Parts: sequence; C-alpha cells; structure tokens
Amino acid sequence: MEQVTNYQLVLQYDGTRYEGWQKQKKSSMTIQGKLEAVLEAFAGTSVEVNGSGRTDAGVHALGQTASVKLPSALDGETILPYLNRYLPEDIRILSVKPVSDSFHARLSAVRKTYAYRVDTRSKKDVFERKYVYGFPFALDIKAMERASKDLLGTHDFKSFCGNKKMKKSTIRTLEKIYIQESDGRIKISYTGNGFLQYMVRILTGTLLEVGLGRRRPESVPEILLARERSAAGFMAPPEGLFLVSVEYKY
Amino acid sequence: MEQVTNYQLVLQYDGTRYEGWQKQKKSSMTIQGKLEAVLEAFAGTSVEVNGSGRTDAGVHALGQTASVKLPSALDGETILPYLNRYLPEDIRILSVKPVSDSFHARLSAVRKTYAYRVDTRSKKDVFERKYVYGFPFALDIKAMERASKDLLGTHDFKSFCGNKKMKKSTIRTLEKIYIQESDGRIKISYTGNGFLQYMVRILTGTLLEVGLGRRRPESVPEILLARERSAAGFMAPPEGLFLVSVEYKY
Repeated sequence: MEQVTNYQLVLQYDGTRYEGWQKQKKSSMTIQGKLEAVLEAFAGTSVEVNGSGRTDAGVHALGQTASVKLPSALDGETILPYLNRYLPEDIRILSVKPVSDSFHARLSAVRKTYAYRVDTRSKKDVFERKYVYGFPFALDIKAMERASKDLLGTHDFKSFCGNKKMKKSTIRTLEKIYIQESDGRIKISYTGNGFLQYMVRILTGTLLEVGLGRRRPESVPEILLARERSAAGFMAPPEGLFLVSVEYKY
Repeated sequence: MEQVTNYQLVLQYDGTRYEGWQKQKKSSMTIQGKLEAVLEAFAGTSVEVNGSGRTDAGVHALGQTASVKLPSALDGETILPYLNRYLPEDIRILSVKPVSDSFHARLSAVRKTYAYRVDTRSKKDVFERKYVYGFPFALDIKAMERASKDLLGTHDFKSFCGNKKMKKSTIRTLEKIYIQESDGRIKISYTGNGFLQYMVRILTGTLLEVGLGRRRPESVPEILLARERSAAGFMAPPEGLFLVSVEYKY
C-alpha cells in the first residue's frame, strides 16, 4: 500500500457563496467539495478532507482546520501554493503542516472559538456588509453580559440546538463569552469544547433579545432547564458568524 | 422662487459595481446618478449633486463629500435616514448638514486624502479581496519611502496625469505621503491640495516599481521633469484605491 502523510490545513473562507462546509451530491458549492477537488487534481488520487466541524451555508471562517492524508511521495512544500492558486478567491489556505497519523481535525479538536458580529447602526458599513448582521436597534450590553454569565460552564444546551432529531448528547461546556462594543458594532465571541448545530446563532439571537429588553437577563437558567428549542431566542442569520479558531492537543 | 437650503453630505461607497462617481447618460450605475435619483424622489423636484471630485470606475470612498441644494420646506433631519433607506447597500450616507449657500463640494475643497491598499502575500485575504490590489512580490519599503520624498511639494505632475489631452494646469501640491506596512499588507496614503486624473494610481504604480527594484528611488525628479506620461510607472488598478477624506475651509 502506498505510503501516506497526514497534513493539517488551516484556512479562511468567505462563506457567502457556499452551501456550507460539508460536501453534497447536489451542489458543487461547498468548501469541502472545492478543497477535495483541488487536492485530488494535485495528488492524482481520491482524497478525503476532514474538517474540524461543519459550518452552515453562509457562515465564514478565519481559521477552519482540516486534516487530509496524501501520498508521501508528493512534495509537501508545494501543497499550499498549489491550493491557493487553484482554489477560488474566497477560499485561502493559511498553513499546511505534516502531523502525526493519529491527528484528525474533528476528533482531535479540544476547543473552538466562534465570533458573531452585529452592526446596530441604521445602515451597515458598506465594506463589512456581507460579514455582519444588520440589527439596527439599541442594545443593553450590560444585560447581555449578565445573561451570558449563566451560559458559562457545562450544561445541557438542548434548548440551543437547531437539530430537533439530535440523538447524541447535547451537553457541552462553554468556557468564555466576550462581548465587545465599538461605535455601534458588537462582536460576541464564544469559546467552548464543542458546539451543537446552529448553537452559536441561537445563543446570539437569545442574547440579542435580552439586549432589546424582550427577555429578562435572569431567564437563562429557565431556558437551559426547558431543554426545548422554543424556550430560546431566534436564530441569528449566518452572515455575522465566523469560525475563528480550533485548538488541538498534539 | 422657492427658498433652498444648501447641504453638505459625507458618504462612503464600495465602488466595485459602479462606473464611477460621475453621472452618465449610458449607465445608471454611477454614484452621482444613484444619489440624484433618490434625492429627487425625496425632494419632488430635480436636483444637482456636486461631488468633491470624480472617483473612477471601481474606486471606493470612505469619506466622499458632496453638496446639494434642496427646498428649504423639507425637513433636513429626514434626509439621512431617507437616503440610507433607498440607496443600495453599497452606498451609505455618514452625515448630512446644512451649510452656507456659497459652499460647493468641489470648489470649496482645500485638501484631499487618498489611500491605496496593496496585499503582497501570495493570495489576498478573502474578506478584503475586493478592497485591495493583489501584488504578490517582495517590496523594498525604504526605497519607496525614499522615492516618495521627492514627490512632496509643489510640482508639475503632468507625467502622473492619465488625461493626455489635459488643457488646464497640471501643477499640484502633495503635502504628505505615508507608507504603512503590516504583515504583507501595505497602505500608501496621499494628502494634497488636488489630484489629476488617475494621479494616485500612477503614483502608486511608480512607487511599486521602485519597491520591486525596477526603477531607481532617485529617479523621481527625472520623471517629474519629463512631463510625459510614459516617464512614470504603470497605473495601479482601481480596487485598491479609497478616497479617504476631503477637507474644507468654512
């Protein structure tokens, strides 16, 4: 059997045009699909790219991480320039490095950070308009911070899970939530050991409802206890969401 | 005759989709044309918007300034929200304020600042890709700074003028040129009392040729003396250029 080398890829992408990370039979517009197609042309063999997790349609990444095994005979130094040359201009590889055979971008991940960006001004900045959710309302940031405190720690986040048929555990640990505000732009950063489908967007919608005064900042424990999607807030749209980074233990 | 009030408008735009600032009979895709159409719907009368100067097709603005006279009977407070609501998402009004009748966005301007952004990495950042010129070469910034010094002051900039049939004076004063570099991204800022057609883009192309080592940093005085477009460097493309601000004496 041919000798293979395992590589870790870090990449950024503008998710606007894509159906999300995961390859689909019915669409050529997925990040995984684009990556595999270019890597297969490079390697001259079929390849399977594993991402740290799926990002949904329209969601962006600053530091998505993937792993892929390629024939060891290939020159590892040429992978990055080849990919950046043949991938479209909205997908960019930041780094490629050989890693141990046991490394798997999803299974080896220990921590992820997402950021959700909101522009509360009457009209979005034109240069950021595809990378921010326009929500032109005054927000009580202190109330949002108060609510975010009760989200920290290990909880059953079933109320914040978009997949109603989820069979697996919905228990996750949220380590940090930071809310930064500057000139009417808000960035909410979430760090945790794993995230359920749509979880960051539902967390954000819930915090925005708290910020509007439509939901009490003290209501988070009740929402968690309900274990019911309808107990949480609306799902914020994909354009404001970024997968910022994925951390690994090597 | 109906009483009119003169207004100063400051606006930003993503120039990617536009044929430039100036209204054209053959295209509806100009910034001036879009502004006049929305203001005419607002005012119920024909209006003429004067910009501080034309920006070319594909050029962006962070602080373009315009003046327009509108019937005094209209509520000035409602102009900004109306414009932002009905203008497309790539044009955003930052401020509207009443000014003296004698104010004219072009004739009253005393100073302008442009910025030109270059990404020298092998592939552009995906989120900035429409707002930066991709020029993937190592540049000698010190040499570019050396060359820029000889551009400062009052000179005949005919060699840097894109309009070969220019009848009027090509003498201008460049007050400042700043070159900032960070992680392979370069921003060149130009401040002066006025700029000729394509001048910033030709100045930038010339400085980039100096940075590449294709042109001596001491060659600027010869280029200025030549008063000949062919003596200067190439014209950098529009996507990296921003009109940053226009200053006035009131």
